Amino acid sequence: MTHKNISALMALFAFAFLFSGVASAQQTVVGKPAVTNINPDGFPRILDNLSVVFKIKAPDAKKMQIDLGKLYDMTKDDQGFWTVTTAPQVPGFHYYSLVIDGVKVVDPASETFYGTGRMSSAIDIPEKGVDFYDVKDVPHGALSSKYYFSKVTNSWRRLFVYTPAGYDVNTKLKYPVVYIQHGGGEDERGWAVQGKTDIILDNLIAEGKAKPMIVVISNGNVSASGGYTSSAMAAFKEEITNNVVPFIDKNFRTLADVKNRALCGLSMGGGQAFYAGLGSLDCFASVGVFSSGIFGGIANPTGKVFDADKEIPGLLTKAQQFNQKLKLFYVSVGEQDPRFEFTQKEVKKFQNSGLKVQFASFPGDHEWQVWRKSLHDFASRVFK
Amino acid sequence: MTHKNISALMALFAFAFLFSGVASAQQTVVGKPAVTNINPDGFPRILDNLSVVFKIKAPDAKKMQIDLGKLYDMTKDDQGFWTVTTAPQVPGFHYYSLVIDGVKVVDPASETFYGTGRMSSAIDIPEKGVDFYDVKDVPHGALSSKYYFSKVTNSWRRLFVYTPAGYDVNTKLKYPVVYIQHGGGEDERGWAVQGKTDIILDNLIAEGKAKPMIVVISNGNVSASGGYTSSAMAAFKEEITNNVVPFIDKNFRTLADVKNRALCGLSMGGGQAFYAGLGSLDCFASVGVFSSGIFGGIANPTGKVFDADKEIPGLLTKAQQFNQKLKLFYVSVGEQDPRFEFTQKEVKKFQNSGLKVQFASFPGDHEWQVWRKSLHDFASRVFK
Repeated sequence: MTHKNISALMALFAFAFLFSGVASAQQTVVGKPAVTNINPDGFPRILDNLSVVFKIKAPDAKKMQIDLGKLYDMTKDDQGFWTVTTAPQVPGFHYYSLVIDGVKVVDPASETFYGTGRMSSAIDIPEKGVDFYDVKDVPHGALSSKYYFSKVTNSWRRLFVYTPAGYDVNTKLKYPVVYIQHGGGEDERGWAVQGKTDIILDNLIAEGKAKPMIVVISNGNVSASGGYTSSAMAAFKEEITNNVVPFIDKNFRTLADVKNRALCGLSMGGGQAFYAGLGSLDCFASVGVFSSGIFGGIANPTGKVFDADKEIPGLLTKAQQFNQKLKLFYVSVGEQDPRFEFTQKEVKKFQNSGLKVQFASFPGDHEWQVWRKSLHDFASRVFK
Repeated sequence: MTHKNISALMALFAFAFLFSGVASAQQTVVGKPAVTNINPDGFPRILDNLSVVFKIKAPDAKKMQIDLGKLYDMTKDDQGFWTVTTAPQVPGFHYYSLVIDGVKVVDPASETFYGTGRMSSAIDIPEKGVDFYDVKDVPHGALSSKYYFSKVTNSWRRLFVYTPAGYDVNTKLKYPVVYIQHGGGEDERGWAVQGKTDIILDNLIAEGKAKPMIVVISNGNVSASGGYTSSAMAAFKEEITNNVVPFIDKNFRTLADVKNRALCGLSMGGGQAFYAGLGSLDCFASVGVFSSGIFGGIANPTGKVFDADKEIPGLLTKAQQFNQKLKLFYVSVGEQDPRFEFTQKEVKKFQNSGLKVQFASFPGDHEWQVWRKSLHDFASRVFK
């Protein structure tokens, strides 16, 4: 904080207040503030029909827009406040931007999240009756950040580790481990922040719906070449099996055998789980592929029609060998995701070849609400 | 991530690449990218003289500025890129903003940090020869987030806990605890992210310069009325002594006696450490006040000339009683901070009254570089 900023601290709070567009007592206050707002009483606000009202002070801007799935033009009042009410949104976690005179930026009135390859604003639209990712009065585990040295990237890297409630108390107990990967344009913050992994697991374990387990959230951006190429997939596989897993087994009380180890991920991370999971069945006995584009609906690593048996030799032709090793092979996807029909089609092929696969779909597009549900579902099925 | 965004994933990376203003092979690449950049090869870039070069694509903006301590006007080239080179910066961590046609926003090319009451961009200007907050090849502890229920705010609150390397291995060992507070317009993310608490402690402990200790980073924004008022200070005191300390003693292997418990903080948090620390010597035997404005140089809680003996009854007139209870009373401040002379003056008064106080100052204004050094210094003196 610079001297100029802090010495005007009170003015600054007043500024933040104005900037976030908080309505004064004279103004009509609409809807409810989003939980993702910096100011708990500020804008954006969500109406009963799930439309979002944005309000931002920018007297000198010529054009203000909100990019929330589509572009919304804002209109300016004589006080210099720009406002817009969007169409009703589907529940879930949506990245969005302010567009000021054509420049796409982050909204300082909202929390920011690393996603879409940059720091991004987001809004969490509540889903009626859904509270599995709310902090509740249950025993809470911990989410820890740790540094480990990667021989693949030749650098120190950060990962997050969820340990369940009681981990520090029952120091003889050992736990199974889920390794979970983020999507493209995200990093290890994805599952830690947007994904609410710790809260989901706290609630699931408290309800007795999941075994107490460790969840490891690492950074899947291992190679500079990009996540979907063959070389990037190979680099990830080496990183997860040769660096991350041994580090976790050394530093946490894990059940360090293959049947107590799972690999899953979303989107790009779903592709990584498919290749590094099914490709390392001596390391992982459970694999979860959430909303991956590898089956189609978006570029896949080979750039061609997906041929499962070519990508993982024998997956279809020697399905029984995979069934013997796999404790759980799980695939999920959002029902409004362009990957939906491709995923369904591929799952049918798996089933027709005799490969055991558990499939789930959830209402929603390619976004965190589907992935939170996928984790919730996967964690309740794994290690049983 | 919305469907529109993800289905154009490759385009998006290209966009991020353009947006962050990465110079093409044809362009002259100047200086070194800031470590706070999203794109490891992008802008802003730092020159040898510590000037910063910003470069942002915004073809349709009418006016672009950078607010980095002072406002810098940017100039546009015929490709729509705006650039500016700032004056040489002092080393340290500086919050900054983009100002697009008068609207102050976050730079999506940089990491964002909760500070100045909103999500803010920042740049970390390296200091020659200073590496005490770099990740090194030493044993690493963990930084964990935990939820606890506060009876003061009647809500679940998050805090971070640093546990030193070996905490999970030597399960009989107990540790002393430092409670450390952020400044105004910040929250528990301050010391966890900007402050690099875990890295500083890892390095200090590895060098044998600090005892292995637990550090607890909680959210000091306890009351809605604002951090510097008497009622806010009282609410903080209740929160830290009645909620946070018992929660930590219950859930971590602490040396749960007064002499192994310290309270410190920066700016507003320094004021909180002063009031709740010196005001609860049955709870904390060591107190650290970093860059606080309570002594003057910025509004203090009483709004008047600071009277230490009135704020903490007997502090000057019965100094020996305080000396008997205090293992360490530490005050630090930046040498370019407007609080500097007021702090020095007050420390002289403490000393003249016979109160034992350890004082340190560091080059720098009211900012994180001074606070990182304050933590480094305080942690190396406490519990000895």
